[in-house]
Amino acid sequence: MAGNIFGKLFRVTTFGESHGHALGGIIDGCPSGLKLNFEEINNELNRRKPGQSSIVTQRKESDEVIFLSGIFDGFTTGTPIGFIIKNKDHNSKDYFNIKNIYRPSHSDFTYYKKYVIRDYRGGGRSSARETVSRVVAGAIAKQLLKIYNILIKAYVSSIGGLNLSENYNKLDFSKIENTPVRCPDIQLAEKMIKYINKFRKKGDTIGGIITCIIKNVPIGIGEPVFDKLHAELGKAMLSINAVKGFEYGSGFYGTKIKGSNHIDKYKNNGSTKTNFSGGIQGGISNGMDIYLKVAFKAVATIKKKSINFNKKKIFVKGRHDPCVLPRAVPIIEAMSALVLYDYIHMYKILLF
Amino acid sequence: MAGNIFGKLFRVTTFGESHGHALGGIIDGCPSGLKLNFEEINNELNRRKPGQSSIVTQRKESDEVIFLSGIFDGFTTGTPIGFIIKNKDHNSKDYFNIKNIYRPSHSDFTYYKKYVIRDYRGGGRSSARETVSRVVAGAIAKQLLKIYNILIKAYVSSIGGLNLSENYNKLDFSKIENTPVRCPDIQLAEKMIKYINKFRKKGDTIGGIITCIIKNVPIGIGEPVFDKLHAELGKAMLSINAVKGFEYGSGFYGTKIKGSNHIDKYKNNGSTKTNFSGGIQGGISNGMDIYLKVAFKAVATIKKKSINFNKKKIFVKGRHDPCVLPRAVPIIEAMSALVLYDYIHMYKILLF
Amino acid sequence: MAGNIFGKLFRVTTFGESHGHALGGIIDGCPSGLKLNFEEINNELNRRKPGQSSIVTQRKESDEVIFLSGIFDGFTTGTPIGFIIKNKDHNSKDYFNIKNIYRPSHSDFTYYKKYVIRDYRGGGRSSARETVSRVVAGAIAKQLLKIYNILIKAYVSSIGGLNLSENYNKLDFSKIENTPVRCPDIQLAEKMIKYINKFRKKGDTIGGIITCIIKNVPIGIGEPVFDKLHAELGKAMLSINAVKGFEYGSGFYGTKIKGSNHIDKYKNNGSTKTNFSGGIQGGISNGMDIYLKVAFKAVATIKKKSINFNKKKIFVKGRHDPCVLPRAVPIIEAMSALVLYDYIHMYKILLF
Amino acid sequence: MAGNIFGKLFRVTTFGESHGHALGGIIDGCPSGLKLNFEEINNELNRRKPGQSSIVTQRKESDEVIFLSGIFDGFTTGTPIGFIIKNKDHNSKDYFNIKNIYRPSHSDFTYYKKYVIRDYRGGGRSSARETVSRVVAGAIAKQLLKIYNILIKAYVSSIGGLNLSENYNKLDFSKIENTPVRCPDIQLAEKMIKYINKFRKKGDTIGGIITCIIKNVPIGIGEPVFDKLHAELGKAMLSINAVKGFEYGSGFYGTKIKGSNHIDKYKNNGSTKTNFSGGIQGGISNGMDIYLKVAFKAVATIKKKSINFNKKKIFVKGRHDPCVLPRAVPIIEAMSALVLYDYIHMYKILLF
Repeated sequence: MAGNIFGKLFRVTTFGESHGHALGGIIDGCPSGLKLNFEEINNELNRRKPGQSSIVTQRKESDEVIFLSGIFDGFTTGTPIGFIIKNKDHNSKDYFNIKNIYRPSHSDFTYYKKYVIRDYRGGGRSSARETVSRVVAGAIAKQLLKIYNILIKAYVSSIGGLNLSENYNKLDFSKIENTPVRCPDIQLAEKMIKYINKFRKKGDTIGGIITCIIKNVPIGIGEPVFDKLHAELGKAMLSINAVKGFEYGSGFYGTKIKGSNHIDKYKNNGSTKTNFSGGIQGGISNGMDIYLKVAFKAVATIKKKSINFNKKKIFVKGRHDPCVLPRAVPIIEAMSALVLYDYIHMYKILLF
Repeated sequence: MAGNIFGKLFRVTTFGESHGHALGGIIDGCPSGLKLNFEEINNELNRRKPGQSSIVTQRKESDEVIFLSGIFDGFTTGTPIGFIIKNKDHNSKDYFNIKNIYRPSHSDFTYYKKYVIRDYRGGGRSSARETVSRVVAGAIAKQLLKIYNILIKAYVSSIGGLNLSENYNKLDFSKIENTPVRCPDIQLAEKMIKYINKFRKKGDTIGGIITCIIKNVPIGIGEPVFDKLHAELGKAMLSINAVKGFEYGSGFYGTKIKGSNHIDKYKNNGSTKTNFSGGIQGGISNGMDIYLKVAFKAVATIKKKSINFNKKKIFVKGRHDPCVLPRAVPIIEAMSALVLYDYIHMYKILLF
Repeated sequence: MAGNIFGKLFRVTTFGESHGHALGGIIDGCPSGLKLNFEEINNELNRRKPGQSSIVTQRKESDEVIFLSGIFDGFTTGTPIGFIIKNKDHNSKDYFNIKNIYRPSHSDFTYYKKYVIRDYRGGGRSSARETVSRVVAGAIAKQLLKIYNILIKAYVSSIGGLNLSENYNKLDFSKIENTPVRCPDIQLAEKMIKYINKFRKKGDTIGGIITCIIKNVPIGIGEPVFDKLHAELGKAMLSINAVKGFEYGSGFYGTKIKGSNHIDKYKNNGSTKTNFSGGIQGGISNGMDIYLKVAFKAVATIKKKSINFNKKKIFVKGRHDPCVLPRAVPIIEAMSALVLYDYIHMYKILLF
Repeated sequence: MAGNIFGKLFRVTTFGESHGHALGGIIDGCPSGLKLNFEEINNELNRRKPGQSSIVTQRKESDEVIFLSGIFDGFTTGTPIGFIIKNKDHNSKDYFNIKNIYRPSHSDFTYYKKYVIRDYRGGGRSSARETVSRVVAGAIAKQLLKIYNILIKAYVSSIGGLNLSENYNKLDFSKIENTPVRCPDIQLAEKMIKYINKFRKKGDTIGGIITCIIKNVPIGIGEPVFDKLHAELGKAMLSINAVKGFEYGSGFYGTKIKGSNHIDKYKNNGSTKTNFSGGIQGGISNGMDIYLKVAFKAVATIKKKSINFNKKKIFVKGRHDPCVLPRAVPIIEAMSALVLYDYIHMYKILLF
C-alpha cells in the first residue's frame, strides 16, 4: 500500500534513497531454473548509468549490483532474489543547502508535507536513482520473456519538437545503441544531440517522447475490466519519474479518426491489416505488435536561479541531466518487461 | 488477479455480462456511518444511461440499482455493500448472428482465444455495460469525498477535431449538464452535436477527449514510486472501454517546453503560480488542482459492412452509440472518485 | 482489507447479513470451461442448511442459490461468477428486543464499538449465515479439484468429551452422511446425538472437533515462509464462526513426542512410513494425506437468561443450534477446497 | 504469491538462505517519524541468537543487522526500510554430504520436487534462520505498538509433558528472561532445562508449547469474516518453522465446555468476568487480554542415523537445537507484533 511493490505474481519491492547506504530490492516469484545472464543485467545497468555520454549527467555511479539470495550455482532457485546497489558518489555537501528549501517542481514540498522527516539529499527516495533497482528486476524479467520469444525495444522518438516519423516498421532497431541519444534514425539522432547540447550549455533541460514496441506477445495476455494489459502498462510507465502522459495504439491521434477508418480489418489468418488497436483488444493481446508512447517533461533540476516560497533565492548545484530520455530507454523496457512477465505468469493459469 | 477487482482499501469487485441476468458488484471497505443519498446515485446512473438523448444509443435500459447488504436504516454499516442491476432489454436475437464471428476491433476474437467459452451476446463481459457497476461504486465514493470537500468534474473537451480552449478556469461547470454532449461551452457543444449527428446518420462513429478536474485534494495524497497518484488515475482511466491515452498536467504538450519554462514557481503560501505539474509532484498531491485528459477512440460498432476473417460479410444490427463520450463523463468521474477515495483511506494512516 | 475477500487467484468476495435482502458473493478467477454440476452445489448447500435434522436449528431457510453471471450454456466463462441467496425467513421481530443490548460472547459489542451503525438482527454480518456463500464457492472449487483427483472429506470427530479413535484410515467415509451428526462411526454417532439432545432440551449448547482429510494432493503445493499450505488452511479454518483452535499432523500431541520418534522415515518410493508431518513439509505438500483438526466452542446463543452489562436481564428468543458441528462439516470442506484450489492455480506457474 | 511477503499495510518481505551471502528484508509501510531504538532491536535479535545458552544450538552467528534505507538521523522517513544480516558462519562443508539426499521430516524433498534447483546447504531458504528477518521487522512493529501502549509477552509454557499451570495472571513476566528456557516459573524452568539436556546429550530433540499474551489492545481491532484477528494471528504462528498447532482463548479445551458455562458475562463497564473468548469476539478485539498457544514439534534435525529413501544411511553433522522453544519466544512476539500493527494501521481507517 505504501507504493514500493510492483507486480502480482512476479513481485518486485524496491528500497533505497539516492544518497543512502545502498539501493536494492527483492524479486519474489521468479521461477526456479533460470540460468541468469549476469552480463546482460550489467549491460542494462550501463544503459541507465550516469556519465555514459556527454548529453547526460556527469555524476559517477558505478551501479554494480550484488545478489544476496535466490541464486545457486548461477541458477534461480524460486526463492526471493535479494540484491543491492551500493551508493558511492554521495557528495552530501552538494545538497546540504537544500535542507530547508523546496526546489520548485520537485517532490521536496510534497514529501515534506506527507512525511515531515525526509532524506533531503538529492531528492532522497524521490530521486530517479530508485529506477536502478527496476532495471535489475526488469533485466531478469527480460530473460524470462526470451523463453517465450517476446522482444521489447524502446527508443527516443521525440526530443522537444524533433519527431521521428511514425512508422516503426521501417526502423533499424540495431542502430538504437549506436548513438548516445538512443534514436535509431542516425541523422535525426545527431540533430537531437545538438538540440540537447543547446539546453545543456545553458543549464536548461528538455523533454521528449519514448516509443516502445513489444513483439511476439502470445494472444490472450492481459485481463479484462480493471487489469487490462494497456492499463497496467500505462500505470507502469506513469510511475517513472518525469512522465506526464501515456498512449498506445492510435492514442490521442485516434480521437480524430472516424470509426469506419479506425477499424482493423482481419486478414484470413486472424491478424489485422492495420494496427490502430496497438496489439490489444478489450485489454487482451491479439498477437499483433504492441506499441506505446511515453511523454517525459523536461526535468526540473536546472542551473538557473529559482525562488523558494520562503522568498530565498536558491541556486542548486549538482550534476544533472539536460535530457533524461536516453537514460530512460532501458527503464521503459524494464517496466514493460515487468508488466509482461507478470501476465505471462497468469496466462498459464487461465488458458486451456 | 483475474482483473475484476479495483482498489485496495475501498475495494470494488464487479460482475455481469451485457445480456446476462444481472450486473452488479460488491464494495468492500466502505466506512460505517455514511448516510447514503440514493437520489445522487440514481442521478449518476441516469447520466450514463442509454437513450438519454438523440446523440447516444437508443437502447432502453432502466439501470435501476438494488442494494442487497451493507446498509441499515439508510446508513452504511462498514460491511460489504452488495448491489445488482437487472438486465431488462436483452434482445438476444440481435446478437445470435455474431455467435461464430469476430467483429473487427472488438474483443470477440481475444475473448474467444483466451476463454473459448464466452457469452457472445452484445460483447458479454467486454461490453461497456460493465461500467454501470463502476458508476454505482463511484457515486458512493463521491459522497465520501464530499466529507473532505473534494470535487470532481469531468466534461467533453474534444470531439474529433473540435477542441475546447485549454483554460478550464474560465469554464462554467454548471453548464456541463445543460447540453447532451456535456461540454460546458454551449456554442461549441452545439457544433459537437451537429458533428456527432453527421456520423450518427451514416452509421459511423467518432471519438474525442474528456477532461477531468479534481479540486481541493489535500496535500500528501498518493504514494511515491510505483503507486503514484497519477499512475493509479492513469490505470483507472485506461481500464475504461475505448480509451487509448491518458495525460495529466502539461501532458504530451509538456514534452516541448524547456525546463526553465515548465517550472511551477512557488507563491508565498506554498501554492504555485503556474500548474504544469497538474497538482501532483513525485506522485503526491501538492494541493493545486489536479487535471487530466482521457483519449477515446471512435467505437468500432458501426453500421457498415465488415469482413470477418472467415471471409463472411457481416452486418451487425443493434442500437449503438455514434459517440460514447457524453455517456463516459460520469464514468471518468466515477473512476477518479474510486482512486481518490482509496488514497484518502490510506492518507489517514500516516503518523503526522 | 475489510476482510470479505478470500484467496489470491481464485478469489471469493462475500456480502450479506443474516436478515437483509440477500447474501451472495463473487468468484473472480474461476477458469473458463468448467461444466458446472448444479446438483452438487445444491447438495453442499443442503448439508449446511438449517432444519435438516432434529439436532440442528429448526429455522427454515431454503438456501437456493441464483447465479447471475460468469456461466454460459452451463459452462464457466472465466468471467466473475456473481451469485445471490435470498433471505426468506427474516422474522425481524424476533430480534427487535436485542437492538440495544449486547448478547454475551457474541459480536454485538465489538461490532457496535467498531461500526456504531449495525444491522443487529440475528447478528447481521457476524452471523454464521454468511458461510452459505462460502459453501457455494467451495462447491465450485471442489469441482475444479476433482479434475486433479483431489478429495476432501470432513467429519465430526468429537462432541464434548466423546471422541472418535484417531486412525482415520480405518473409517468408512461413505457413512459420514448416514447420520445427522456426520460422524462415520455409527455407534459413536448415536451417542453423540443423544449427548447433543441433552443440551438441546435444556436450551444449552456443546462444541467439538471436526477432522478433515485431504487426499491426492500433488507434491509441491504450498508456498514456503509466510504462505505455507498449513498456515493458509489454518487461517481459513479460524475464519469460521466459533472456531478456537487448529492443528495439523501430530498437532498439539506432537509437542510431547521426542524428535527421534516424530521423524517420518522414507519408504523407497518417496512416501513415508508414518505421517506425523500431516502431508506437509516446510509448508509444501509431500504427497501424503493432509489431515487437520478444527476446534469449535459451544455457541453462545443459548436459551438461558443472560445479563447484559447495562444490567437488564435478557432472554433471547430464536431457534438456535444446540451443536453447530454437523452443519459445519461442509463449511470445513468448502474452506479446504478454496485454499487448495487457490494453490493449484499457483502450482501451474512453476517452470518445472 | 510466492509467499515471502507478510502484512497488508505494514508489509514485510524477507529474503535469504541460511548459508548464502546475507539474509534481510524490506519493511514497506512503516510510518514516518518513529525514533528507532536500535538497542531494543539488537536485544530482540540476541534473544533469538544461536549460542546464547547451553540448551540451544552452539552455532556462532553474530546476527548484526545493517539498515540500508528508510531511516534518516535516527528517525523513520516513511520510505521502505531495507536491511541485511550477513552470514558469517557458513561452514558449507558440513552440508556437502546432504547435496543429494533428503533428510527425513525436513523440507529437502518437497523443495527438490517443487524447485529442482535449490540451495541445499543447511536447509537453504527452508531454514529457521529466515526468522532473523522477522525478528528485525517485529522489533520495529513492537516500537510502533508501544505508542498505543500495546504489550506483547510470550513464554514457554510446556516442554514435552512439563506444563505450566494455566493462569497467566499469576505469572511474573519479569522473570521470563531470568532463565535460558524463558519460562517465568523458575522452578519449572529448571526442570525443563534438565529435561532438555537429557535430549541434548542423546542428540535427540523435544517440542513444547509457547503461550503469548497481548495486553491493552483497543476495542475494534480485527476484521470480520475472513480476516478475523485470531485467523491472522493463527496464520502468522503457523508460518513459523516446526509449528503444528494454534489455539486462542479456551482453544481445544473449550470444545468440552457447555455453552452456558463458556459464556463470558459482562461486568458493568463492558469488560467480562471470565475470558474464554481470549479477547476476541467475531474476529474483533473486545478490549480483554488476547492469549494464544502455539504448538512446536520436536525439530527433525537429530544426531541419529536416518535412512534416506535411496537407501543410503546418512549421519547429518552440524550443531543443532535440542529444543527450539527458548529461541522461538521472540519470534512469536515478532509475528504477534506484525499482525497487531498491521491492523492498528487499518483501525485508524475504519472507525469513527
